[in-house]
Amino acid sequence: MSENKSAGTRERILDSSGELFRRQGYAGTGIKAILTASDAPYGSLYHFFPGGKEELGAAALREGGLTYLRLVEAFFTEGADVVAATAAFFDGAAVVVEMTDYADACPIATVALEVASTSEPMREAAADAFESWLRVLDQRLTEAGIDPVRSRELSVELFCAIEGAFLLARTTRSTEPIHITGRAAVAAVRSALPG
Amino acid sequence: MSENKSAGTRERILDSSGELFRRQGYAGTGIKAILTASDAPYGSLYHFFPGGKEELGAAALREGGLTYLRLVEAFFTEGADVVAATAAFFDGAAVVVEMTDYADACPIATVALEVASTSEPMREAAADAFESWLRVLDQRLTEAGIDPVRSRELSVELFCAIEGAFLLARTTRSTEPIHITGRAAVAAVRSALPG
Repeated sequence: MSENKSAGTRERILDSSGELFRRQGYAGTGIKAILTASDAPYGSLYHFFPGGKEELGAAALREGGLTYLRLVEAFFTEGADVVAATAAFFDGAAVVVEMTDYADACPIATVALEVASTSEPMREAAADAFESWLRVLDQRLTEAGIDPVRSRELSVELFCAIEGAFLLARTTRSTEPIHITGRAAVAAVRSALPG
Repeated sequence: MSENKSAGTRERILDSSGELFRRQGYAGTGIKAILTASDAPYGSLYHFFPGGKEELGAAALREGGLTYLRLVEAFFTEGADVVAATAAFFDGAAVVVEMTDYADACPIATVALEVASTSEPMREAAADAFESWLRVLDQRLTEAGIDPVRSRELSVELFCAIEGAFLLARTTRSTEPIHITGRAAVAAVRSALPG
């Protein structure tokens, strides 16, 4: 029972910090704010994350990366129509961004940019997350008959399109960039398919 | 003379904060670090930026936006071949990113993501900067004969491609994403041209 409670506290700290980090950045989120949001006692952060905020940051990036991986997998299921999946993914992203008042887009991009030049453990956690999403796209596109070299390129193109669109959408408070890049992404996937 | 010295101090503060912000984020950069990097006395920050760090942040975003606007204009000159300009822009971006050890990419994206949901003055400064870059692209593409609706879409697609590529390049420490999206951007511009 006390083990369950401990697991719950660690999870709450991770969830709260993930939300705070993606909305207002890593450096802008104090440990006090994380503990308050997760209703956790002070000592618990260093109990679960002996490396302190940087270890928590890397864990939050991995957790956010996994959550988003599951989302990518939910759209790009095995055997899915990759054109329809691409359209649905971008449309869904636009809905979430608008619904959260332009707060929630990519769960880890904000922190990834912040730490790319300042924390190797966090940069690596973000890079692993991004690569895990690219691998799913790559696999589905290859299964759909696109040759492996083009599949990898197309996966990178789709990733960059949605990430760039998230940045422009949040900054301009408009879903237009997500819809524009979504249409281009659908066209790119369609034209890469054989026959 | 004292006016020149004042102008110099303000400029140094803006330059140093711009560099620190784009490399390690807004919240992660303390006022002390900015003053040290710009060799400016403590009182000068509030002298030039009475609104404090947020006013400095917005000014740095506008300054970074202007610098990058001039860069975009240097590639996409009036009457330029837009296909060649697109190729040169992405190639140049890859060189700078690699040369700066993956530190310098977009001058304002890191801060834009950090503050999109927390500071309206800074969000607006970033949005204005992004829109100013899009307007140049849009104009050049229209002048090259692409219809205005498609030009606007294509400008957004190019912007999102390079911004997403900057994120992935810095995080994975590879220029591959910039080269992949660059080739796709060149193909998109070429196929949008009339005839």
